[in-house]
Amino acid sequence: MSEVYALRRARLRDRCKAGGSQSALISRPANVRYLAGTAPRGAVLLLGKTDDLLLCPGPPEDRPAEGRPDETLRVQTLPGTAGDPAVAAADLAEGQRADTLAVEEHHLTVARHREIRSVVPRLRLTDLGSAVEQLRVVKDEEEISCLRIGAEIADQALGELLESILVGRTERHLALELERRLVDHGADGPAFPTSVATGPNAGRRAHRPTDRRVEEGDFLSVCLGAAYRGYRCEIGRTFVIGTSPADWQIELYDLVFAAQRAGREALVPGAACRDVDRAARQVLDSAGYAEGLPALTGHGVGLEIDEDPQLAPSAMGKLDACVPVTVEPGVHLPGRGGVRIDDTLVVRPEADGGPELLTITTKELLAL
Amino acid sequence: MSEVYALRRARLRDRCKAGGSQSALISRPANVRYLAGTAPRGAVLLLGKTDDLLLCPGPPEDRPAEGRPDETLRVQTLPGTAGDPAVAAADLAEGQRADTLAVEEHHLTVARHREIRSVVPRLRLTDLGSAVEQLRVVKDEEEISCLRIGAEIADQALGELLESILVGRTERHLALELERRLVDHGADGPAFPTSVATGPNAGRRAHRPTDRRVEEGDFLSVCLGAAYRGYRCEIGRTFVIGTSPADWQIELYDLVFAAQRAGREALVPGAACRDVDRAARQVLDSAGYAEGLPALTGHGVGLEIDEDPQLAPSAMGKLDACVPVTVEPGVHLPGRGGVRIDDTLVVRPEADGGPELLTITTKELLAL
Repeated sequence: MSEVYALRRARLRDRCKAGGSQSALISRPANVRYLAGTAPRGAVLLLGKTDDLLLCPGPPEDRPAEGRPDETLRVQTLPGTAGDPAVAAADLAEGQRADTLAVEEHHLTVARHREIRSVVPRLRLTDLGSAVEQLRVVKDEEEISCLRIGAEIADQALGELLESILVGRTERHLALELERRLVDHGADGPAFPTSVATGPNAGRRAHRPTDRRVEEGDFLSVCLGAAYRGYRCEIGRTFVIGTSPADWQIELYDLVFAAQRAGREALVPGAACRDVDRAARQVLDSAGYAEGLPALTGHGVGLEIDEDPQLAPSAMGKLDACVPVTVEPGVHLPGRGGVRIDDTLVVRPEADGGPELLTITTKELLAL
Repeated sequence: MSEVYALRRARLRDRCKAGGSQSALISRPANVRYLAGTAPRGAVLLLGKTDDLLLCPGPPEDRPAEGRPDETLRVQTLPGTAGDPAVAAADLAEGQRADTLAVEEHHLTVARHREIRSVVPRLRLTDLGSAVEQLRVVKDEEEISCLRIGAEIADQALGELLESILVGRTERHLALELERRLVDHGADGPAFPTSVATGPNAGRRAHRPTDRRVEEGDFLSVCLGAAYRGYRCEIGRTFVIGTSPADWQIELYDLVFAAQRAGREALVPGAACRDVDRAARQVLDSAGYAEGLPALTGHGVGLEIDEDPQLAPSAMGKLDACVPVTVEPGVHLPGRGGVRIDDTLVVRPEADGGPELLTITTKELLAL
């Protein structure tokens, strides 16, 4: 695995050189993990002119981290009194006779930036921008395999919940139960706070579970995901509680299902992100739900649950093969509830069978 | 409750004026919540020259938040295409004819700061520093009451766990079980990831639970906390599994207990933070455990689990009454395990009975 990280750093180094920077300071945790194999809290990665270094604030015992540092990487733990790792890294960059250091201006704070400038005034600070985030968009098969395992775990946890009795239980308890099952099946933990929404709450994106209890006739929408070796996937489903759904429930479900399918079917390499969004969104729009739709109908996943690309009306860029994304349109009717359907898929060329669905729980409208 | 928030903003406004700023932009989420009553994800607070405003990125449904905005505060939700709330806030500040805007340079990124400067080039940006964090250090009785309830919840969850059978269960399962119990007893959720550490892991600060199972003869150390109305407390205890602890376990426990008691007893209004740290630390130092001690022996708690003040050798400043802090020394012997004992207390004058212990679970060495 070490080779993977060294190769990623080599690619980033090429980008830096092309941008005129001799060294780079990576501070955003998911970016550090992507390039170093681990990201202890507060650690930064120096992509040096002569030598790469992971700088961790000490003592290490206070900073438990997932993953292991790549073996080809030098790791240095700073004593508690040594100040900030980012400042120490800049100091080291200057020691390696770099004259420019690219920093992640979208992550580094103004205060830290100022501190670095005062410690190494001769080092020219440039902006690395989202160079690492861009490298992270297209996944290798190892990364996709972690997402696939995470999706299997989420499918299992959800499947078990559906077999249990739901009426009378609170949103909070169902969410906790799902999270326990994720860990039971081998997840590092939930990929994000599990959302369980019943009745009038159903269909709300990222709804925080409340003490409301599941009732007969409710819509029940659930959104969960597993983190597996750092990779985060997402699945969302909506069910009906009781013997038979009401007509409005069936209609709304069919509509959101059609929108979600349109989004999934638009996932081809080379498709514009905004066109994928439009494919899903226009189904809801033309049924009269233009108001109150979420800002995006999907997004990339990986080491973070919400990565590039964004599937949104104003999104730029096109999809590549091997990019995992969610497709998750939904409609929420205030006071009545609603429907969300959310899958994680990997963009694949048609020759390889088209988009690979990672979250395989049925999307039929189940009455539980 | 609205008055509380308006009063806090008035205090901050006084500080800003004293520092020469006519308006301030609060972006750090816990600071926004402290001043506005809620902090939807991505929201910022403008403390304007004429008018205060909470700016939230839209649509609101995508941004569930705890708490409610203070009724005296104007809330504005930006459409998804309106750009960043911090930039919009700066624009509004200029519209209110402010000529200076104080920003939280320790939170605002370099990229956002640059964007603000380009949108409102005539507005002079200054540094608010940690003015809000400083206001947050001393708690009012309402805040302390939330911490007290959170501590009761954590005590209950821990007490119930101790009554169950532990041998053979994994660290991960015990941690999840504790988190479920926290929610059962009314917590918003865990205050931080619950730590359960057995055998050689015991006594490690912020240990991430693994699949190791509890065995006879183990030390078991547990650290958990409840979030209640946004306020986060912390309790840590160490137990022995089996009928009778080994001599080295009793000795180590007594030592850490003595250090923790020394720290607690040093909590008086006016005490230097470093002296409280020293009181606890020197007990461990003089027993030969100077190496490998954690960087701090305690810290403030409140809307964040790790706030000012820090109880550490290099800490500046003194304790005031009504400041809640943890006292949490520990010793970890690599390969053997160790002991941590952690309480949340509120600094109180001796006339009021001295430090108020919020986490009341026994600190006897229980053999479970």
